[in-house]
Amino acid sequence: MARVSQEHLDARRRQIMDGAALCFARNGFHATSMQDVLKEVGLSAGAVYRYFRGKEELIGAIVGEVLEWLQATFEAAAQETPPPPPDVLVGRALTQVLAQNQGGGEGETPYFPRLIVQVWAETLRNEELATVMRQGYAKVRVAWVKIVEGYQAAGMMRDDVPADHVARVMVATAQGFAAQLALFDEVPVEALQDGLRGLMSMGKPT
Amino acid sequence: MARVSQEHLDARRRQIMDGAALCFARNGFHATSMQDVLKEVGLSAGAVYRYFRGKEELIGAIVGEVLEWLQATFEAAAQETPPPPPDVLVGRALTQVLAQNQGGGEGETPYFPRLIVQVWAETLRNEELATVMRQGYAKVRVAWVKIVEGYQAAGMMRDDVPADHVARVMVATAQGFAAQLALFDEVPVEALQDGLRGLMSMGKPT
Repeated sequence: MARVSQEHLDARRRQIMDGAALCFARNGFHATSMQDVLKEVGLSAGAVYRYFRGKEELIGAIVGEVLEWLQATFEAAAQETPPPPPDVLVGRALTQVLAQNQGGGEGETPYFPRLIVQVWAETLRNEELATVMRQGYAKVRVAWVKIVEGYQAAGMMRDDVPADHVARVMVATAQGFAAQLALFDEVPVEALQDGLRGLMSMGKPT
Repeated sequence: MARVSQEHLDARRRQIMDGAALCFARNGFHATSMQDVLKEVGLSAGAVYRYFRGKEELIGAIVGEVLEWLQATFEAAAQETPPPPPDVLVGRALTQVLAQNQGGGEGETPYFPRLIVQVWAETLRNEELATVMRQGYAKVRVAWVKIVEGYQAAGMMRDDVPADHVARVMVATAQGFAAQLALFDEVPVEALQDGLRGLMSMGKPT
């Protein structure tokens, strides 16, 4: 038997995850079967089950990957002195997540927002997925805490508010923006950045 | 036949909506049957169907009511000169929504966050609900635009960012906070308010 390179294995894994994410976003997690995933990626059951035991493992891998990637992005930002401001960071992270999760076709809507809204609902009754989400969220929040502490150390933000509370707000803003993209209409990431800049300019109420 | 007072009709309608909301939040929209709702509220099918034709109409009424109530809250705030700052307004609105949607028992977690996450997922494949959500969201956003214009007119916020973009961020923050409450852990509304105050203190990056 020919030896299969790691590169080939990784590419195959990537292909399966992308196809599955597209199926889940399009039809929902429950309405998608492994058969649908096989058809989407054009691989045999044997080829796919070599990588993933089922839908649960697939959705966990898809979500876990995005959360790890967000964590890495924000950890890197936390190393800068001072860290880039929130509007820049949130814009950077969202732009990249959305760009990595296009529908495939030219001009197609990014499918990540639809996917994440379905994942949230699934999380409420799937303990395995809930664990992936909780751990990933905790890591992203910890990275944001370091960033906020950087702002406070640099005198960019009042330091009498707990950094963790600001971290929660930063994550909430991105989550809510994803929900709006999924549910309502297309909004450019720049709108979110503008809005943050407005909020950031308020200072203490007069 | 005895004449039924409007007060009685309203109370009955309220009872059905509250019971249904609890069922949907607990078991999800799909896994809840009208039988479950009847059992929860302790009424006959005839009594319930007099008010609601089915689950779709119930969930639309539940969500529509919260959105209308939020709109009224923010419209009232927009009339103040200047409007109360974002941390105060978001805190006020969320505290009241959560208080109105307790599980019923002492110390129970508010069920609204779980409900809204399930509604979002359902919205992706239910055009009727999508319409309710879109219209309600648009109204809340319009009310927030007026508030933001109030901030800008009072010199509390830079006026070179579109008010609509700030409005989107304010709604996103509350949506994301609801998602965090549903998915992760209990967070007091005060944490969100703290976080907003931190963000608001940033001014223009140095």
